[in-house]
Amino acid sequence: MTDPNRLTQQLRFFAEIDKLKTVFRQTWLLDKSRRENDAEHSWHLGLIAMLLFEYAKDDGVDLLRVLKMVLVHDVVEIDAGDTFAYDKVGVRDQAERERKAADRVFGLLPADQAAEFRALWEEFDARGTPEARYAAALDRFQPLMHNYLTEGKAWRQHGVTADQVLARNAPMADGAPALWAHAEEIIRDAVAKGYLAGPAWQSGERD
Amino acid sequence: MTDPNRLTQQLRFFAEIDKLKTVFRQTWLLDKSRRENDAEHSWHLGLIAMLLFEYAKDDGVDLLRVLKMVLVHDVVEIDAGDTFAYDKVGVRDQAERERKAADRVFGLLPADQAAEFRALWEEFDARGTPEARYAAALDRFQPLMHNYLTEGKAWRQHGVTADQVLARNAPMADGAPALWAHAEEIIRDAVAKGYLAGPAWQSGERD
Repeated sequence: MTDPNRLTQQLRFFAEIDKLKTVFRQTWLLDKSRRENDAEHSWHLGLIAMLLFEYAKDDGVDLLRVLKMVLVHDVVEIDAGDTFAYDKVGVRDQAERERKAADRVFGLLPADQAAEFRALWEEFDARGTPEARYAAALDRFQPLMHNYLTEGKAWRQHGVTADQVLARNAPMADGAPALWAHAEEIIRDAVAKGYLAGPAWQSGERD
Repeated sequence: MTDPNRLTQQLRFFAEIDKLKTVFRQTWLLDKSRRENDAEHSWHLGLIAMLLFEYAKDDGVDLLRVLKMVLVHDVVEIDAGDTFAYDKVGVRDQAERERKAADRVFGLLPADQAAEFRALWEEFDARGTPEARYAAALDRFQPLMHNYLTEGKAWRQHGVTADQVLARNAPMADGAPALWAHAEEIIRDAVAKGYLAGPAWQSGERD
């Protein structure tokens, strides 16, 4: 028998997460018409997790857990908002904002599912498993590709430099080394084409 | 070793599917700010496939295949567009439009993946497996909930009646009977609240 209270809780979560469609990221759609929202981004990650699975670093990665993680990974941003990877101020309290958001949003669920969904989000965030490292690699690779394919639109808007992009994306090597190798090529090419400012140490900002 | 041609094909598909973020459905977001796009919809289905898995009709449903199907199921709409479920003209050539779209869009992939992705889409469409029936039930349940929670916004805009909604959604019973039971309650309540026109046979349109 269906437990009506349980279903009610589940449907409250169902409705709550609709808000993720209105949380916008810094990444632009490839047609440059607008920025991407978290829900679309999560779908894109899911599909490329399937598409690029052969590049996962470790053997025996559980694709089901990867898909669950990428579908859940941004849900906390309903309350916490999207924190741009290169936002030095925003990242300071990001963990605290997201923890509170997780308490509230996953707290809508029946206890067993609250625990399950929260564990997936924490696993993704900690990058301690092969699945999380592969998922995190995709979460970096996708916006990098979007930046490259939009001639560096978000990079330029925020004055991001190649050394920042290299540092931010290097953990890709832990989850999908072949994608990181491709990413390094793309970053070099983006600098050559002027989509991305060269490393700060080349421009004399560091000595 | 990474095969650069293979990766190039995969990344062409990666970029192509970004267009799904600009294919709009008739369903409204719950805040009624705008209609939902196919990419967001597919993400929402993925998350509720996890959330509502206990209501899948058959034992032993493979959630991984369900998630793969829901992530892929609307990709053909990049070319074919979204066909509103109650659009009597649009549905006439829907299958043909979608078949052509599948040829082109999945044709961007390396042959093995083109076959895999196309098979998932065809499986979803045919509703011949427990996984496809569960996925198809979610694909009906989600817009039904959105219509209900937006006071019938899309139903009213298109003059949809309760008998049409019942007929359209009845296959939900084959994939997730408990969700269908809840859907029937919702449809009754939507009629009572005036979100949805009563069955046509009640209004004298049929005799």
